[in-house]
Amino acid sequence: MRHFVSPMTAAVALLSLALGAAGPAPAAQPAPLDAAASDPVKLGWMVGSPPPPDRQLRFDDGSYFQFPALRWSVAHFRELMPTMNISRGVGAPVPLPRALRKDIDGLRFVPLGGQSPMTWAESLAANYTDGIIVLHHGRIVYERYFGALDERGQHGAMSVTKSVTGTLGAMLVAEGKLDAAKRVADYVPELASSAFGNATVRQVLDMTTGLQYSEDYADPNAEVWAFSQAGNPLPKPKDYQGPRSYYEYLQTVRPQGEHGAAFAYKTVNSDVLGWIIARATGRNVAELLSERIWSRLGAEQDAYITVDSTGTPFAGGGLNTGLRDLARFGELLRNNGRFQGQQIIPKAVVDDIRRGGDRAAFAKAGYELLPGWSYRNMWWVTHQADGAFMARGVHGQRIYVNPQAAVVIARYASHPVASNSANDPTTLPAFDALARHLGKTPR
Amino acid sequence: MRHFVSPMTAAVALLSLALGAAGPAPAAQPAPLDAAASDPVKLGWMVGSPPPPDRQLRFDDGSYFQFPALRWSVAHFRELMPTMNISRGVGAPVPLPRALRKDIDGLRFVPLGGQSPMTWAESLAANYTDGIIVLHHGRIVYERYFGALDERGQHGAMSVTKSVTGTLGAMLVAEGKLDAAKRVADYVPELASSAFGNATVRQVLDMTTGLQYSEDYADPNAEVWAFSQAGNPLPKPKDYQGPRSYYEYLQTVRPQGEHGAAFAYKTVNSDVLGWIIARATGRNVAELLSERIWSRLGAEQDAYITVDSTGTPFAGGGLNTGLRDLARFGELLRNNGRFQGQQIIPKAVVDDIRRGGDRAAFAKAGYELLPGWSYRNMWWVTHQADGAFMARGVHGQRIYVNPQAAVVIARYASHPVASNSANDPTTLPAFDALARHLGKTPR
Repeated sequence: MRHFVSPMTAAVALLSLALGAAGPAPAAQPAPLDAAASDPVKLGWMVGSPPPPDRQLRFDDGSYFQFPALRWSVAHFRELMPTMNISRGVGAPVPLPRALRKDIDGLRFVPLGGQSPMTWAESLAANYTDGIIVLHHGRIVYERYFGALDERGQHGAMSVTKSVTGTLGAMLVAEGKLDAAKRVADYVPELASSAFGNATVRQVLDMTTGLQYSEDYADPNAEVWAFSQAGNPLPKPKDYQGPRSYYEYLQTVRPQGEHGAAFAYKTVNSDVLGWIIARATGRNVAELLSERIWSRLGAEQDAYITVDSTGTPFAGGGLNTGLRDLARFGELLRNNGRFQGQQIIPKAVVDDIRRGGDRAAFAKAGYELLPGWSYRNMWWVTHQADGAFMARGVHGQRIYVNPQAAVVIARYASHPVASNSANDPTTLPAFDALARHLGKTPR
Repeated sequence: MRHFVSPMTAAVALLSLALGAAGPAPAAQPAPLDAAASDPVKLGWMVGSPPPPDRQLRFDDGSYFQFPALRWSVAHFRELMPTMNISRGVGAPVPLPRALRKDIDGLRFVPLGGQSPMTWAESLAANYTDGIIVLHHGRIVYERYFGALDERGQHGAMSVTKSVTGTLGAMLVAEGKLDAAKRVADYVPELASSAFGNATVRQVLDMTTGLQYSEDYADPNAEVWAFSQAGNPLPKPKDYQGPRSYYEYLQTVRPQGEHGAAFAYKTVNSDVLGWIIARATGRNVAELLSERIWSRLGAEQDAYITVDSTGTPFAGGGLNTGLRDLARFGELLRNNGRFQGQQIIPKAVVDDIRRGGDRAAFAKAGYELLPGWSYRNMWWVTHQADGAFMARGVHGQRIYVNPQAAVVIARYASHPVASNSANDPTTLPAFDALARHLGKTPR
């Protein structure tokens, strides 16, 4: 699968808060360091008192997000920028029961587009895995950590954040606190003259808005750079004239095409949803996530989220969590929103995600590796018979929920290529093969 | 006690990471808002989507640390700047038993220098208390939160951080990993030509180094400003020529007077100790604190610490914790370093703190409100018959340990005046009166 692996370009390296999961597989380039050679502990980033100059990483010069340095940074975002806590509360965590299995590492699957089989264990390195945990019927059957992550660490969820924000939005819809048929401007009048103003909340939740907004990192004029600059919490350069926060930026997005016509994966939708949520509840997504989910989930660690200079959480990509807690969130979805006898997320929300979105609209986006899929409430839905759906974030972040097999997989990774198209070939068939394998085991 | 309360000056307001607890009481000035009128929740800092411009606080312009805004900021440091986590681990916290008493609020005491008595309840507002908890024989007998703090929140410990750093240093001395008689330069050669080079580790631990270093916030040329600027994690101005990290700054400190001659409360000693600790253990103070204490204390929240642009924790003032966890740390000291049958801090360390430092050296510093006290391992020792000692941080942060009365008090506050001389008159006699009162109660 080496042809899917390419070094990050300088442009991508400057990405201050990596965003999308879309885009075609990158063209063939010289192979970057492999997982073992790029191990962040081995490379010694930010180790020493002080660290040697060539091992110091900074937010402001973008050095922190160049491969292989990004392998350290994804587990240390809070050391580089301001963040907001997402409290788990102060009670006892609810431990995940353990029933570790030894028949997983040797499991074989054929990568997408490949000929020869690969083992599960080999896929971990191929995907630059930082941590992976597999739950079967709610029990930990597999758990591994590498490099800069361990069970006490926290890792950037990147665009998996969107699925969390989307879940909160869908909860408010199910509870009648948001009307999915209403226009964005009904909730956020400041967006009336932007592209979002006449889009419905549903179109935002499913990313079928028509926006003049590109997340093509290869294009220096792509709007994603202005969005990142606006949300950058550091002081702006003196000659900077642009928007100074996520909210200011969102008001500048221009329309392109029709709302509702096609799926178009654009992070700004998630941040608009975050704004809508804040207006509907009086709480930002960090506060609402703590109150409604994180403090009721048995979590063992607080989570956190990056913020812009006005304290607004990055609803499209700023979440950081412990790996086990990410799995707890996936397990909550698998259990139709129930945990310890409490309905934390309405079952209707999970049903709605599982039914999926508009597959014809999704097809227009041209994801060759994701045929027949759809996008609903900011979750990726496979429409496979086993009902699998997932959350996806750049560089390999995942939550995989397979209802039929009773399997949940949470993975944190630091793949050199941002786009998940680079790791899907060694991820999707591996996860499905494991679900099939575990699904044969009685409960 | 109104004459002790003065508004922060513009110079103090710019203080990027507030430091000292020393200095004389400020001159009389118009009274600032009282505790109720300055309540940060009532004032609505950083509330709204986005917050109104006059309620937005930023790190880079210093607005966050002007009174009354600082009352919000002390509970939200991580939202303003990079921080490093201090993990409690992922297991269950050990709850502090509760045996709440109703006879505390009405307790009366006479403020230092005052005539008429004040009640304990009145002292809470007088001291701009954000949270206070009282343990007696390890049980919570009193607990209150105000303003921006609650049981799930975290608050800046300010110079209470020094006592934590000092405890770590003293632990390493007790274990033979540091030799208190050795010179600083033996551990940190980079400091050889600075004032610290020929000081002993003991002189650093007890702050009897002779340094040309002023923490007088009223003096715009005081060295504290250059120190703050060096440690500021934001990018430096283009024309900035000075030191770019705590470690770089420490190398520039010049000698003044003799080491060992007098106690002189200067934050830089704590940061030198942090550097020594890092060299002796290969771990910075955050990592060591997590490993040696925070993960073994039954803590219910992770703590965190602010960092400079090289990732170095601010060992002199950057710690933030939950209030109950701060009390757990105090209780650990009261129990001679033992918790649940484990000796977490060597008893010799607590004994050494309780014996105190050089009282004659301390007297030379001229603390009128602290007669007969001393400073040892970065703890303030009263030398009262009850053995009380404490940690002190600007704006009213405290840990008070009274061995004879089996009382521990942890307090977070946001007094408009940085110097503790402004709140000592309504703090010291209140804490002592409560200890006497509780000490009469059988276990």
